[in-house]
Amino acid sequence: MIQSKGYSASAATSPLAPIDFERRDPGKSDLVLELLYCGVCHSDIHYARNEWGHSRFPVVPGHEIIGRVTQIGDQVSNFKIGDLAGVGCVIDSCRTCPPCEDHEEHYCEKGVTMNYGSKERKDSKVISQGGYSTNYVVDSDYALHIPSTLNPEGVAPLLCAGITTWSPLRHWNVGPGMKVGVVGLGGLGHMGLKFAHAFGAEVTLFTTSAAKADDAKSLGADKVIISTDPEAMKSAHGFDFILDTVSAVHDINPYLSALKRSGTLCLVGLPEQQLAFKSSLVLRNKVISGSFIGGIKETQEMLDYCGEHNITADIELINIADINEAFDRVVKSDVKYRFVIDLATIKTG
Amino acid sequence: MIQSKGYSASAATSPLAPIDFERRDPGKSDLVLELLYCGVCHSDIHYARNEWGHSRFPVVPGHEIIGRVTQIGDQVSNFKIGDLAGVGCVIDSCRTCPPCEDHEEHYCEKGVTMNYGSKERKDSKVISQGGYSTNYVVDSDYALHIPSTLNPEGVAPLLCAGITTWSPLRHWNVGPGMKVGVVGLGGLGHMGLKFAHAFGAEVTLFTTSAAKADDAKSLGADKVIISTDPEAMKSAHGFDFILDTVSAVHDINPYLSALKRSGTLCLVGLPEQQLAFKSSLVLRNKVISGSFIGGIKETQEMLDYCGEHNITADIELINIADINEAFDRVVKSDVKYRFVIDLATIKTG
Repeated sequence: MIQSKGYSASAATSPLAPIDFERRDPGKSDLVLELLYCGVCHSDIHYARNEWGHSRFPVVPGHEIIGRVTQIGDQVSNFKIGDLAGVGCVIDSCRTCPPCEDHEEHYCEKGVTMNYGSKERKDSKVISQGGYSTNYVVDSDYALHIPSTLNPEGVAPLLCAGITTWSPLRHWNVGPGMKVGVVGLGGLGHMGLKFAHAFGAEVTLFTTSAAKADDAKSLGADKVIISTDPEAMKSAHGFDFILDTVSAVHDINPYLSALKRSGTLCLVGLPEQQLAFKSSLVLRNKVISGSFIGGIKETQEMLDYCGEHNITADIELINIADINEAFDRVVKSDVKYRFVIDLATIKTG
Repeated sequence: MIQSKGYSASAATSPLAPIDFERRDPGKSDLVLELLYCGVCHSDIHYARNEWGHSRFPVVPGHEIIGRVTQIGDQVSNFKIGDLAGVGCVIDSCRTCPPCEDHEEHYCEKGVTMNYGSKERKDSKVISQGGYSTNYVVDSDYALHIPSTLNPEGVAPLLCAGITTWSPLRHWNVGPGMKVGVVGLGGLGHMGLKFAHAFGAEVTLFTTSAAKADDAKSLGADKVIISTDPEAMKSAHGFDFILDTVSAVHDINPYLSALKRSGTLCLVGLPEQQLAFKSSLVLRNKVISGSFIGGIKETQEMLDYCGEHNITADIELINIADINEAFDRVVKSDVKYRFVIDLATIKTG
């Protein structure tokens, strides 16, 4: 077993605190990583606080991981010692079902192995633990190459917030000549703005906060609409595609109204409670859809594109000792736009 | 003006009763039709009873009309006297907006002229009146050619129930190798079964009524699932496309669950109240969409296809004197599967 240090929640109501724990033994196709950076995703908080009701404790959260390869198995050919490597939400899958064969391992029909909280496929006695820690063991087929030209701390959030917004924008062919909306300016929304702008679309941010207008424009928005202003919302129309990143229950009808014929509203925020819509608003072949992260191949394509176009997340780098405060600030949306933990502070802290 | 006899509702609470009324003068591009048959659509009842709140009284309902051309304007080149002609929900539009240019007149941005209850574009003092009557005046560009090989009384419902189900099945490319569901077996649903079967799909009917199973199979269903049976619903999975024809509020989540990745649930029943869905169920790029009748060009394509494949609606032919009883039976879903009025009974009745 591999010894690791990290920060874990021991129960739904416990703050994160230091923990020593063990990872599974690395096999012939595995990498061992020394971790450098890990993004703080709202999902980490949901899981650590058992807000979805299926958490396994103790849990070390973190699925936006950047590390350096320190050990490789005999059969590893795609990484070498010293390479930077990324690990996202998915660390293993069955590899043979139709979604896996289609490079959509995140939809694996046999059940995907998640970065933390899953039984390891290669050692079912071990529950996977995440990236708020000093090292990681991962199959090399599920690790990502990190472009050398980018600051790695800004790359970490691409592994969840990045692919979650990239995948639907690509699936729905967002590009030049299209009028695209992004709802919400958080970790997901700010990546949605960057990608939609990079793809050549005309981009509008819908936000409840007028204070975010200037930031939005520097992130790639051509226009900002304050979604609490009914007159402004009534004037919104002709959108080909709207990416809705809001994870609270909210009224999606104004966004359906703003779509043109055959336009698409795509949900990536995914509230727990049901959403309601007026069925008359999906006439004209309008679409309500949803998307969930993305496959390993697509994640690598995104990272390569980001390397070529110099795209990273806007982040606030924090010490691991500040993680509990960071959780509280994420819940209050008080972050521009993603916290990333400097994991060197685990060893020295 | 053209003198006409018909059956109208004089107020939301009045039964239909005989009326003498006038239609607009026919112009150079118009046809005058002697009417033969008219289908009874649930929309006729909603409108006659002012259930949508915008009805204009008195109203002669009926937008599934078959007639014979008795008079043509000087500029008419696509019809000749004696031809059979059909008139559906849409009788005019602006002809210049993007939807009109795309042959989607039913989405005309200037406001479509409907078969009944609309201001006539060529004489704004006249409100259009429907097909429960002896004649009709319509622009020849908005009239349909009726295949001579089909029984015209079975063709009448194609002009609304037919195109409403044809258009989404075509838009979403339903064909061989696809697993398709149809929810509800009424006027729309029975046409959905016939078309999906004709297009080569494997077709399942979802119905609350076990009594409809045998009928469904003769109409084109390969399989029937009783939607009130939770176990049967849980076993439903892997659908590429589900056409939901239910117009009452209902739970769409089981149908979203039954879709495969990137599958589509398309609503054509369109309840007045909002529908709710679990956003987690549209992950995997699943789609909720909706569709509303279809354009004139597409309606003609459907009619031509029906002529080639010998497809008509299953109907019960009625005397106009029985129209009020028919309305009550439609509300109770007590019809297989569409009432069609023999309009000769107006003159003789």
